[in-house]
Amino acid sequence: MNYSKMFIPTLREVPADAVIASHRLMFRAGLLRKLANGLFAYLPLGLRSFRKVEQIVREEMNAIGALEAKPPVIQPGELWKESGRWDAMGESLLRVKNRLDSDFVVTPTAEEAFTALVRDELSSYRQLPLTLYQINTKYRDEIRPRYGVMRGREFTMKDAYSYHTNDTCLDEMYQAMGRAYRRIFKRCGLSVIPVKADSGAMGGSGSEEFMVESEIGDNTLILCKKHNEGLCDYAANVEKATCAADFTAQTSIEDAKAAAAKTPAFEKIDTPNVKTIEELCAFLKTEPKTFIKTLIYRASNVELDLSSAPGCEKLERKKPSLDAPPVYAEAFFAVAIRGDLDVNEVKLAAVLKASEAALAVETDVVRLTGAPVGFAGPVGLKTLPLVIDTSVTAMFDSVTGALEKDLHYRHVAYGRDFEAWMIEDIRTVKAGDRCSLCGGELYVKMGNELGHIFKLGYKYTRSMNVSYLDENGKNQIPTMGCYGIGVDRTMASVIEEHHDEAGIIWPASITPYHVIIIPIKYDGKVKEAADKLMEELTSAGIESLLDDRNERPGVKFNDADLLGIPWRIVIGDKNITQERPQVEIKYRREKENRMIDLDKTAAEITLKIREEIALLNS
Amino acid sequence: MNYSKMFIPTLREVPADAVIASHRLMFRAGLLRKLANGLFAYLPLGLRSFRKVEQIVREEMNAIGALEAKPPVIQPGELWKESGRWDAMGESLLRVKNRLDSDFVVTPTAEEAFTALVRDELSSYRQLPLTLYQINTKYRDEIRPRYGVMRGREFTMKDAYSYHTNDTCLDEMYQAMGRAYRRIFKRCGLSVIPVKADSGAMGGSGSEEFMVESEIGDNTLILCKKHNEGLCDYAANVEKATCAADFTAQTSIEDAKAAAAKTPAFEKIDTPNVKTIEELCAFLKTEPKTFIKTLIYRASNVELDLSSAPGCEKLERKKPSLDAPPVYAEAFFAVAIRGDLDVNEVKLAAVLKASEAALAVETDVVRLTGAPVGFAGPVGLKTLPLVIDTSVTAMFDSVTGALEKDLHYRHVAYGRDFEAWMIEDIRTVKAGDRCSLCGGELYVKMGNELGHIFKLGYKYTRSMNVSYLDENGKNQIPTMGCYGIGVDRTMASVIEEHHDEAGIIWPASITPYHVIIIPIKYDGKVKEAADKLMEELTSAGIESLLDDRNERPGVKFNDADLLGIPWRIVIGDKNITQERPQVEIKYRREKENRMIDLDKTAAEITLKIREEIALLNS
Repeated sequence: MNYSKMFIPTLREVPADAVIASHRLMFRAGLLRKLANGLFAYLPLGLRSFRKVEQIVREEMNAIGALEAKPPVIQPGELWKESGRWDAMGESLLRVKNRLDSDFVVTPTAEEAFTALVRDELSSYRQLPLTLYQINTKYRDEIRPRYGVMRGREFTMKDAYSYHTNDTCLDEMYQAMGRAYRRIFKRCGLSVIPVKADSGAMGGSGSEEFMVESEIGDNTLILCKKHNEGLCDYAANVEKATCAADFTAQTSIEDAKAAAAKTPAFEKIDTPNVKTIEELCAFLKTEPKTFIKTLIYRASNVELDLSSAPGCEKLERKKPSLDAPPVYAEAFFAVAIRGDLDVNEVKLAAVLKASEAALAVETDVVRLTGAPVGFAGPVGLKTLPLVIDTSVTAMFDSVTGALEKDLHYRHVAYGRDFEAWMIEDIRTVKAGDRCSLCGGELYVKMGNELGHIFKLGYKYTRSMNVSYLDENGKNQIPTMGCYGIGVDRTMASVIEEHHDEAGIIWPASITPYHVIIIPIKYDGKVKEAADKLMEELTSAGIESLLDDRNERPGVKFNDADLLGIPWRIVIGDKNITQERPQVEIKYRREKENRMIDLDKTAAEITLKIREEIALLNS
Repeated sequence: MNYSKMFIPTLREVPADAVIASHRLMFRAGLLRKLANGLFAYLPLGLRSFRKVEQIVREEMNAIGALEAKPPVIQPGELWKESGRWDAMGESLLRVKNRLDSDFVVTPTAEEAFTALVRDELSSYRQLPLTLYQINTKYRDEIRPRYGVMRGREFTMKDAYSYHTNDTCLDEMYQAMGRAYRRIFKRCGLSVIPVKADSGAMGGSGSEEFMVESEIGDNTLILCKKHNEGLCDYAANVEKATCAADFTAQTSIEDAKAAAAKTPAFEKIDTPNVKTIEELCAFLKTEPKTFIKTLIYRASNVELDLSSAPGCEKLERKKPSLDAPPVYAEAFFAVAIRGDLDVNEVKLAAVLKASEAALAVETDVVRLTGAPVGFAGPVGLKTLPLVIDTSVTAMFDSVTGALEKDLHYRHVAYGRDFEAWMIEDIRTVKAGDRCSLCGGELYVKMGNELGHIFKLGYKYTRSMNVSYLDENGKNQIPTMGCYGIGVDRTMASVIEEHHDEAGIIWPASITPYHVIIIPIKYDGKVKEAADKLMEELTSAGIESLLDDRNERPGVKFNDADLLGIPWRIVIGDKNITQERPQVEIKYRREKENRMIDLDKTAAEITLKIREEIALLNS
């Protein structure tokens, strides 16, 4: 392709709202333009890379037996009401009414559409497993789109859905997807961090996120320092991260019990006008870690059986739909944790099998504890189920609220002065905590999610009434997995990882062109050599851009660097007209260029590009 | 691909709403499923063909220098307000409000988006011509979607937009697109009828539609019978069709004038209670063709200069926008035509340069003619501009309304008794009329539009303020063309043209698989031969489906016919275990099969498929 025939509107200025490299460079290199907030148009050059990312995803999906389909982008609201997501999705779901006043959605994911398709066609276990996918337009009505395509409103996602007769079979596809995802990112030249993640609003259990490090990432990742050395593979989203117990005062729970036995009997103390832990520590001249912090939480849609839990005798348990398990719409819990730690509400909700857990409002706290906010404590608490973090099991001689205004207890010991209704790991892990796998130090990074694989289980197949006949002719519900990759985000992340001050540095696998040929002046012998090289490269399957513009060499070199095309061939008048015609070649990642005989150039470049692609694919 | 690993839910029953072959067969062969009215999901087999059609379109677009881009599917309403289509498009435009109450559309075409893109990047004439296209999701809120993807709500369209400094350059791209379209349809194995069409609501002049014949087509086509013999290429949409003059009473206009001179002086006659032409003919014992039918039309947004037209002295002419030409918001015309003919309102609107022409309401007719409906006539008419069809110029000794209740004139002759303000061809052509090119007989067919190419001119570039600097540094507005092809419709039309009672008969270029291999029993030597053939064909680039199902041969044969895969290879135990192993091959279009040596099969089939594709591409 001749440069003058392409549409590559490069920019010297950076758009004002472009704060990250990929956003800046996608605009500057003429890959992308903005049509409205969060809505972008890929220009011809950008689309070439975009399609290559899509194709890599497609090849890896096909390789594990997933079948490509194409449901509509606009989908009937009815299906979303069936699954329950019409109400659950909130405002990020773009809803449309058509001329007949029917409800539609501009689809953000397609669990409903694929499950409806499968429901209609599935009759026998012989048809399973079945994995379908699409690479298609999606929409999420982001309230504040930014960072270019990294957080846009319309985007392209590969989403796959698998259906199985049993968990083992689901796990096989889940593992195959995990391997396919690793291959996809590797082929794109991307370093990803696979992390165990909470599956959040998607429901179900068992999921893994594929993250890239990013200063503007919207996920907090907890990583083990030994991860970097390849010694430990611990990586988790903070929402689900665990860490090694840090029973600093004791070496074990047994020690803690012994210590508790030796602790003086607990006693009430006056703590006038003391409200925060900091004030209490100052008042008692102690440290937060000696304090048992007790918070009152309100949980929604609790699946856990509370029939024998304190204070829950009168709670009503209802089935939200015929096939769904019964839940308590609302339940309150006292949650105790060591004073220097924080409760992780996602982990808390998970152990309570609740859709959400949030701090109770003041009136509920007063009603349930009989004291103002700030004086809750586990001792003598009878109105609520007490959930304690494992950190509390090692506490003796502790301070805690006395369930009365301006009063605390001291010399409190777990197991002697109070018992828990439930003991779980519900702490928020932070930098400096120890890795639960290897004991290494944990640190924090911000990350962006590029892909996500889930075991959804029966969430959709149950609510949407999917069934098949098993070997014995008995009706069964299939179990399900879902698997997504953001195509735009993947492409932008490649630029984030591969660029310098001058521009993009494309990996050979997804570069818009492999080679840029720059004739210093597109004329005479130079033009002849450029055209011949173009022809040789093209017939070898190497995609080349010939900069035939009447521009100064400096402009052409700068554009070549900005565009990030891996190989640059410069053809100058002097070198091409000498007895042994030569050209200058340069690899975008390197500073140095070198001269090479014209007649060896195409073969050499072809070899180099094939080698790089082979390495990425290996 | 093994059949058992694909997802091909064939159906014996036909969906109740499927009245055309493509709709029936796309469902029966497991290519497509319905998600909601007018919203379809392509299943894996269907998507394979769909992608091949897309790829043919892409290749032909790239070959003429069009550049692929990808604007969003959801587009800001602002752009549509700028172009004026927000109001003009009516209810078929699907509008969305997002969570911030901003207006968006689910785009049916993308003139606005591409023109906005070009506007922002265009500065110099050196950047032109520029042709961009996309192959992307579109939405049209059909009130009554039907015939499967032939008239769905969501569909995929290739739409291209070109920008030029002058009409010659626009015409070059327009012609290149026309050739590309012919190639696209030929490569898909489709017979299309290119017809000159009115560009209707799209604005601009110069357009061609690519039609396929269809009993359920929504276009009426006028074709010359000599078209079929390759002798004449006349084909037109009835909205724009012309025909040869049929001055049956005379041989020429000169004859008509002479005849007029010999006609007795016109006189008023009583025609009590006579309202229709039929009643008048019965009353006067004459034929409709002796009657000058005169109708009053109301035209909107008339660009024509009416400053010297009768009755228009007080009409106000206004510019709807700064750069747009001035128009009369409303104007009335008397339109006269031979009594056996009908006025074509689209042709009338075109000659008046109006956005629309429709029969005036009764009160306007009475006000403007001074008589009830049914008594308008050209003689003595002073309150309205008189537009006559060319047929009237040959009329003498005619009957016409006398502008008074229950009165007509007879012995009326054009040129003697009245003059026209404008003479144009505004008749509706019908079967039996004569071809204006060759005099052959015209006939009528119903057709479906697959593609459409337009010269849009300045409609969008002017309303959206696009400009560039010409060679002299002067600001200029570019002229524009637009070009669309429906991908789904093209695919469905191929099935319409290529099927029999047993199923689809795919052309090799867009078949989901080239070959289906049917082992009678997938076991032992038969399995060995099937696997080997599969491998040989695959490595030759031939896409094959191996029917490894444990089904009766009859079921497999029926499915193979239904799926429409061009070549079928049947491997039976007896033939494969004989000394010289043989298989049976059959071309889907032919009844006969033949035996062939196993070791020659792959080469033979590969050759046949390559030949067929080469022929389609030639």
